[in-house]
Amino acid sequence: MLVLAQHDGMISEQLADDLADVEARFAAELQSDLDCVNDLAAHIERYRGKMLRPTLVLVSALACPASQGEGESETANATTEAHRIIATVAEMVHMATLVHDDILDEAEIRRKGKTINNLTTNETAVMLGDYLISHAYHLCSTLPDVQLARMIANATNTVCEGELYQLHNRGNFELSEEVYFEIIRRKTASLCGMCCKLAGYISKTKDAVADALYAYGEKLGIAFQIVDDVLDLTGDEQTVGKSLGRDLEKSKLTLPLIHYRDTAGESDRAEMIDLLQQQAQVDLSIDMRSMQVSEIAVRLREHGSVDYARVKAAELIEQAKQLVCDNLPESSARDLLLSMADAVLSRDF
Amino acid sequence: MLVLAQHDGMISEQLADDLADVEARFAAELQSDLDCVNDLAAHIERYRGKMLRPTLVLVSALACPASQGEGESETANATTEAHRIIATVAEMVHMATLVHDDILDEAEIRRKGKTINNLTTNETAVMLGDYLISHAYHLCSTLPDVQLARMIANATNTVCEGELYQLHNRGNFELSEEVYFEIIRRKTASLCGMCCKLAGYISKTKDAVADALYAYGEKLGIAFQIVDDVLDLTGDEQTVGKSLGRDLEKSKLTLPLIHYRDTAGESDRAEMIDLLQQQAQVDLSIDMRSMQVSEIAVRLREHGSVDYARVKAAELIEQAKQLVCDNLPESSARDLLLSMADAVLSRDF
Repeated sequence: MLVLAQHDGMISEQLADDLADVEARFAAELQSDLDCVNDLAAHIERYRGKMLRPTLVLVSALACPASQGEGESETANATTEAHRIIATVAEMVHMATLVHDDILDEAEIRRKGKTINNLTTNETAVMLGDYLISHAYHLCSTLPDVQLARMIANATNTVCEGELYQLHNRGNFELSEEVYFEIIRRKTASLCGMCCKLAGYISKTKDAVADALYAYGEKLGIAFQIVDDVLDLTGDEQTVGKSLGRDLEKSKLTLPLIHYRDTAGESDRAEMIDLLQQQAQVDLSIDMRSMQVSEIAVRLREHGSVDYARVKAAELIEQAKQLVCDNLPESSARDLLLSMADAVLSRDF
Repeated sequence: MLVLAQHDGMISEQLADDLADVEARFAAELQSDLDCVNDLAAHIERYRGKMLRPTLVLVSALACPASQGEGESETANATTEAHRIIATVAEMVHMATLVHDDILDEAEIRRKGKTINNLTTNETAVMLGDYLISHAYHLCSTLPDVQLARMIANATNTVCEGELYQLHNRGNFELSEEVYFEIIRRKTASLCGMCCKLAGYISKTKDAVADALYAYGEKLGIAFQIVDDVLDLTGDEQTVGKSLGRDLEKSKLTLPLIHYRDTAGESDRAEMIDLLQQQAQVDLSIDMRSMQVSEIAVRLREHGSVDYARVKAAELIEQAKQLVCDNLPESSARDLLLSMADAVLSRDF
């Protein structure tokens, strides 16, 4: 997990135990009586990453003030089974989106053949993602309060809208900053926000605190996606651990490119649009592609567009931290929420 | 709907009203504030078919005996809002599976290019299907009883397992009849069974009646899929209204082929396996493909393998009808359940 190593003592022990519990619930929920299904579910391991979403649920729960009757100045300082179940559900939903993000479009298949996907076919990846989504709702509805399922489904509705909005804007080199933010708010930040809010809801915290937790998670999620998009353009492939320049291949405009387009001189802008159009070509050679990606990265850095995006992310992180400080009592769990926000900015993977 | 036209009077009026309500709820649930999402959702119209699953919910509800306190010999003869919501959820889940069934694998894309799918890309189809699934659970969790969401998710878990089991057995020319039945029980029949059972559950019918309704729906669903598979091999393309021979292209063995393989003489069997292997080739010409499909159909018909499959389906339909007669009081709704079962056999589309 992102920042766990920096925090010693009881809270990191509790969190480690809870995350282990989440992993166990995850595996148990996906268990099938069919071997072929279990073999496929094992593929999902390779998607397991930072466990950001379950950690948001659990740390938010630990940071919540105890419910009104018990004196507001103290934190509940406890996670319940419901928190751990919702943490598992959130991770399962997130994994499903990762599996479905790996579906290839026609152009990619023509270019890459069968090598890119470890799963047998697109169809298997689709069904495996569906299996994850279905089990996420199945697990969620073990909890007696149907509002939890309702809120999770609300978040997944929004995530899907964000993905569809992004697909709709592929190849739209006129994409505005406003629409860019709306896309990432929906596709990434809404689930992060809901993770934090649900933790508060389960802990029976005041609505205002639950709303502040949502806003914290949402801002953190937007910043996370901005940094993700910056890394896709300018990161080090070895450090990030995945192939970069994917957004360029898919003609997805992200914040540094939008800034460059809107602020560079006319000829620079025209050259950049030309580079973007070439990147969208199916038959661009690998060497040419990677040379152009480097050139785009240099241009964005020198023009200050990368800094611009990082500053925007940093502003959101400051706002997120302020929300936490204004609405939650001091505690080591609250400190951890603040550190998690900082870690979103400093990560290079 | 399948057999609505054959039934006059109050019940068909009620059913028509309820199905119109289901369509309205379906459209309302999918409404987004994003135009691009609404435009995509409009594509879903082209998948709307027989409304089998919502009809199963509604007719089962009408055929249920009134709850114990009110005298068992009369039917409840009413659908509630919960029935109409579950009917909508079931149709939404089914639509999602249809959209995801249209995802193309690598081979198909290489052969067919972009023409086959009306949607822009595979990725859009994946996300649109996810949007449907998400909204199905969202709608389901408006109902206060979380058990309904749990049972729907249970059915969708099983549907996904069936799909994965089928994908796993592509190209398996040794597929046993037992595994074939297990695949279609999961991928098709489990949702039909759940539709009927949930109607009983909502109507607070006895467990034994709800279980009988499940068994009715499951058997009807298995028979429905057998007939679907027979039509894919031997139907008339114009009447069925979709391209046939798809299971051959995808190396899916279905009941007539399994029967032929297990009962034909050695040389006939070898020739059939050879034909099946050729059908699986990506680069088979369209003319050759369709000539071979005709030859396979003739062989299956002449050997009695088509009749074998139809008899199996008929046996299941008899069992389904018997369950209804044994467990539900006489009523025009019960008659409709019987007619729906018969219609599964007689359909040629």
